[in-house]
Amino acid sequence: MADPEIIEAISSYGIQQFVGYGDDQVSNDAKDLIRNAIGMENIDIHFIPGGTHVNLITIDSILTQSYMSVLAVESGHINVHEAGAIEATGHKITYVPSRDGKMIIDEIDNIMELHKDEHMVLPQLVYISQTTELGTVYSRAELKRLRDVCDKWGLYLFVDGARLGSALTSPVSDIDLGELASLADVFYIGATKNGGMLGEALVIVNDTLKKDFRRNIKMRGGLMAKGIVLSIQFKVLFTGSRYLDHAQHANDMAQKLSEGISELGYSFMTPPVSNQIFPVFSDELISKLSGLYGFYVWRTEGDGKSSIRLVTSWATPIDMVEAFLDDLKLYTS
Amino acid sequence: MADPEIIEAISSYGIQQFVGYGDDQVSNDAKDLIRNAIGMENIDIHFIPGGTHVNLITIDSILTQSYMSVLAVESGHINVHEAGAIEATGHKITYVPSRDGKMIIDEIDNIMELHKDEHMVLPQLVYISQTTELGTVYSRAELKRLRDVCDKWGLYLFVDGARLGSALTSPVSDIDLGELASLADVFYIGATKNGGMLGEALVIVNDTLKKDFRRNIKMRGGLMAKGIVLSIQFKVLFTGSRYLDHAQHANDMAQKLSEGISELGYSFMTPPVSNQIFPVFSDELISKLSGLYGFYVWRTEGDGKSSIRLVTSWATPIDMVEAFLDDLKLYTS
Amino acid sequence: MADPEIIEAISSYGIQQFVGYGDDQVSNDAKDLIRNAIGMENIDIHFIPGGTHVNLITIDSILTQSYMSVLAVESGHINVHEAGAIEATGHKITYVPSRDGKMIIDEIDNIMELHKDEHMVLPQLVYISQTTELGTVYSRAELKRLRDVCDKWGLYLFVDGARLGSALTSPVSDIDLGELASLADVFYIGATKNGGMLGEALVIVNDTLKKDFRRNIKMRGGLMAKGIVLSIQFKVLFTGSRYLDHAQHANDMAQKLSEGISELGYSFMTPPVSNQIFPVFSDELISKLSGLYGFYVWRTEGDGKSSIRLVTSWATPIDMVEAFLDDLKLYTS
Amino acid sequence: MADPEIIEAISSYGIQQFVGYGDDQVSNDAKDLIRNAIGMENIDIHFIPGGTHVNLITIDSILTQSYMSVLAVESGHINVHEAGAIEATGHKITYVPSRDGKMIIDEIDNIMELHKDEHMVLPQLVYISQTTELGTVYSRAELKRLRDVCDKWGLYLFVDGARLGSALTSPVSDIDLGELASLADVFYIGATKNGGMLGEALVIVNDTLKKDFRRNIKMRGGLMAKGIVLSIQFKVLFTGSRYLDHAQHANDMAQKLSEGISELGYSFMTPPVSNQIFPVFSDELISKLSGLYGFYVWRTEGDGKSSIRLVTSWATPIDMVEAFLDDLKLYTS
Repeated sequence: MADPEIIEAISSYGIQQFVGYGDDQVSNDAKDLIRNAIGMENIDIHFIPGGTHVNLITIDSILTQSYMSVLAVESGHINVHEAGAIEATGHKITYVPSRDGKMIIDEIDNIMELHKDEHMVLPQLVYISQTTELGTVYSRAELKRLRDVCDKWGLYLFVDGARLGSALTSPVSDIDLGELASLADVFYIGATKNGGMLGEALVIVNDTLKKDFRRNIKMRGGLMAKGIVLSIQFKVLFTGSRYLDHAQHANDMAQKLSEGISELGYSFMTPPVSNQIFPVFSDELISKLSGLYGFYVWRTEGDGKSSIRLVTSWATPIDMVEAFLDDLKLYTS
Repeated sequence: MADPEIIEAISSYGIQQFVGYGDDQVSNDAKDLIRNAIGMENIDIHFIPGGTHVNLITIDSILTQSYMSVLAVESGHINVHEAGAIEATGHKITYVPSRDGKMIIDEIDNIMELHKDEHMVLPQLVYISQTTELGTVYSRAELKRLRDVCDKWGLYLFVDGARLGSALTSPVSDIDLGELASLADVFYIGATKNGGMLGEALVIVNDTLKKDFRRNIKMRGGLMAKGIVLSIQFKVLFTGSRYLDHAQHANDMAQKLSEGISELGYSFMTPPVSNQIFPVFSDELISKLSGLYGFYVWRTEGDGKSSIRLVTSWATPIDMVEAFLDDLKLYTS
Repeated sequence: MADPEIIEAISSYGIQQFVGYGDDQVSNDAKDLIRNAIGMENIDIHFIPGGTHVNLITIDSILTQSYMSVLAVESGHINVHEAGAIEATGHKITYVPSRDGKMIIDEIDNIMELHKDEHMVLPQLVYISQTTELGTVYSRAELKRLRDVCDKWGLYLFVDGARLGSALTSPVSDIDLGELASLADVFYIGATKNGGMLGEALVIVNDTLKKDFRRNIKMRGGLMAKGIVLSIQFKVLFTGSRYLDHAQHANDMAQKLSEGISELGYSFMTPPVSNQIFPVFSDELISKLSGLYGFYVWRTEGDGKSSIRLVTSWATPIDMVEAFLDDLKLYTS
Repeated sequence: MADPEIIEAISSYGIQQFVGYGDDQVSNDAKDLIRNAIGMENIDIHFIPGGTHVNLITIDSILTQSYMSVLAVESGHINVHEAGAIEATGHKITYVPSRDGKMIIDEIDNIMELHKDEHMVLPQLVYISQTTELGTVYSRAELKRLRDVCDKWGLYLFVDGARLGSALTSPVSDIDLGELASLADVFYIGATKNGGMLGEALVIVNDTLKKDFRRNIKMRGGLMAKGIVLSIQFKVLFTGSRYLDHAQHANDMAQKLSEGISELGYSFMTPPVSNQIFPVFSDELISKLSGLYGFYVWRTEGDGKSSIRLVTSWATPIDMVEAFLDDLKLYTS
């Protein structure tokens, strides 16, 4: 369920009573630890139970007029897997073409040119995920270029970091938390998928977006009476390098898995660089594996083949990776 | 501005006072004339000022849960040219692939299969335009197949008829108003683009969608205090064959235009079968024509060419068509 | 239906074609006439079909965050008679106590004090009607005090002027159109209830509220393709003193009516100072009158009595007023 | 922070991995325990992080048309303390007069009569809290009468049970969980305020409201990836009589407190029958107490007096109650 240190911390705070709604000392401590990790003082931090919740609260808050839209790739989490959460707050998602799950930054100019008259929505915000839904990672150069395009058009940049740990510790990563914060207007750091029981830490860098933000959280049902439940997660994960260590482990396991899969002659839908990898197998092979392991079939790739999604975590044991590779070898030969 | 008979009717009703909010005799007369033209008694009819207004009122009304979405082609009017009106009511538009502006009906099955779990929106409604945004027309066979797919998945079918007159009188049309009504759950008949000053007549065929519909209209600001202004348009247009005659004239002018353009060796982006046609010209030619005529450049077609949109109306004089063709000939030779 | 000069103007523009969406010369003329009447150059003017439509577009546009609310009296049109139009755009209406339909301005301080923490909505806008729903009129002193309170709390002031003509020509009025514009951030001038077939002219005074406003109108379905239909109404009404003359006539008829009613010994629910008056009659008398005249029973006043709403208009003939008074006299004696 | 048994259970489940999104065995166990406590099989149960979240998800789900409203008392939690959460989903709250925080049931008839035409919202749902915001409790007779009125008008009944434990164990309570379930269409059982770290258990009794409900939860960001965090709370609280025992303790402490306060000659704003009590003290006394204890000043009661809100919990020690009474005695004499 969660990092044993978090379980331990919950036990140790036990039945103590704390000030409600996140105004307690543990919450302040957790925020200070995150400020330290980022290396910025002048940022606002809010703890919110889950990722879809953060996305809808933040995007609706930034889109101050109902005719404003958010730019995202078609495979974006907000577009596909949130049951219409963004539209339910009254805003359109405008698609930007993508490659390997990453936004093709040069396309933004064309899209903005097409949205100049009043019959069109007005894009106001770029939403990306780091890592993306397809397990890929934006490089520092790409993020800088995206920042430049955002500045050119007056767009805000919001980075969904539900899987940020895996991006920061990816073998292809060339950016740290502080640099990310200097490029984004707002982003979040996910605990749910990296050792926590629940919780995402929203970091607001741009002053314009800070005012009265807690009213947005309250209005969407995200202001927890016992906010300390959320902040304990982050206090533990940001004490020492725990947050990055968990992510590194997940990435190492995925790396080992993808190397083994490659050696057996298989290819991948997208480059395997994070804790989500998408090998392409024959449908027959997939059918055999699915009896042994839990995974999603992602999409058909033609020629009787499909890509599947394998996800490792902070808790994935190396034995399980090796067992999978052994089985795969068996079915391959 | 409008059909002289409509102007005349407005003058003749002059300064008489009428019961407000569309409960007057003229409104009842107009509805009876439309019921006659359709050949159905048990339908509800509402007059609403404009097309975007009808679309947002009707779609929000049918989508009873916020997680429900409407299926439409990417070029659909609700998706591109309504400034996010549908999303502003809280609902997503889910795209269905298209050809020549028409929905590829077989794709609906795949989309519905992909939307079965709770992380996805639930499509509940198919929205098409007749004619489409690209000037094409659904045949009777296509509409019947669409109806079958809708029935299979429990989807409602809503037909945007802002340009319905042009569809019904198109040379490729094989369906009349009554048949359309027997296939759709709800549709509308546009006056604004076919001789009226303003107004669309929404026809609700499916009983499930009728209840308390006027509250939806009122809530969205569409219930006019002087509803008679709207109903006069329809009383005139549906007396005799005036509505179809206007559309036929617009189509005839477009037909003459497209034949002349073809003869000069040009092709079209989509088949020219209604009052919107999309010839493909060189950008140089477009530049010359744009000094003389008002039209939109629709999209680039490669090789230094683009398609433009030419629209004829009930009021387009044949002289103007001929003048355009003369100019085109001049620039072509 | 409407002022004969408007009918005449529509006839004279006849079947001419105009640029769409209100970018035509008649629309520009109408706006210039209104600017002249107000005596301000730097204002934006938009013509929108109806009052509920203007209210929902304008209020949603001003409330840039979903947790922001609009202050209004409980009897306000947006609260009672718009089927939840404001809430449907995602915003709460926060009530301010009232007297005779007018906001008790001193109560705003208390309300703002109570809305300081994040569990509460944040009022951002004051909405009043001039005349009010109960036919009363804010004086210049009251509006100035309201402006001061708005400035103190950073609130915008929006004046619903569906019945503004009647307010400006009321015997108790001490403010003209220019002064109103200098006190409000945004207001509108109603044609529908003062000689027009349809249409309200929204006047945006505060620069902050002007940007991209047409996108709001389009998104809510209020941008008419044939915008000229709306602007003709205002071009006619603001040529000379036509707008005020119509309102004066309505007020004169109401005045005559209320004097006659008073002479017969009846009292009023609120002071009769505009074209809506609310005499208090016995239920027996109301029953008799209701067979002869159309009116709403407004509320029960106790002792077997109720108030009814009588409304006069630019088209009310003096004969009708006299006939009513004769009948009332008959039933009274 | 929470019941030690819950902390213990979290420790014991430790770092085990579970199926996500609440499809795990612990969640099923917790639901079975609740079904047992209610004595009904055919009910749907969903665990959602917090009360405001449950309210907005449930009410938006029931109000299938945007013009539909929810009936509530003015002091209702959804009206005052949720930052406009309900309106942000697009729906109006229509007020019903109240006495001691309880809806005056006979007023519903009048309100429904006034909402019959299309200019008005259509109330579709009654929302009450048990206990109310003022600490009072609806009796069985009152709830039955409310049920009858709901049936008469086709209204759903939704009971906010954030403080349901305190209501069920109140000295004035004459209803148990099963009877409540037989009267309400949907209600919830709060853990956050009764021993849990977080979590409310929504119980859907009426079949009409069950379909696809998880999509609503997902769309509003309430579907937790690690749903087990929520279900552990309820598994512990509904093993044996733990849930009611916690509530009973809170009530006992409040009872002791209110008796002591009464004996010193003070009165209460509303009858002190649950774990929220509202004694009326002089502002001078309140000022002294506020240096020693944390509480809200609820409202001014005139004559230099105000009511304050005192809340006890499952964890309130009797020493603290006695200390408060001692201090009060000191300041009183």
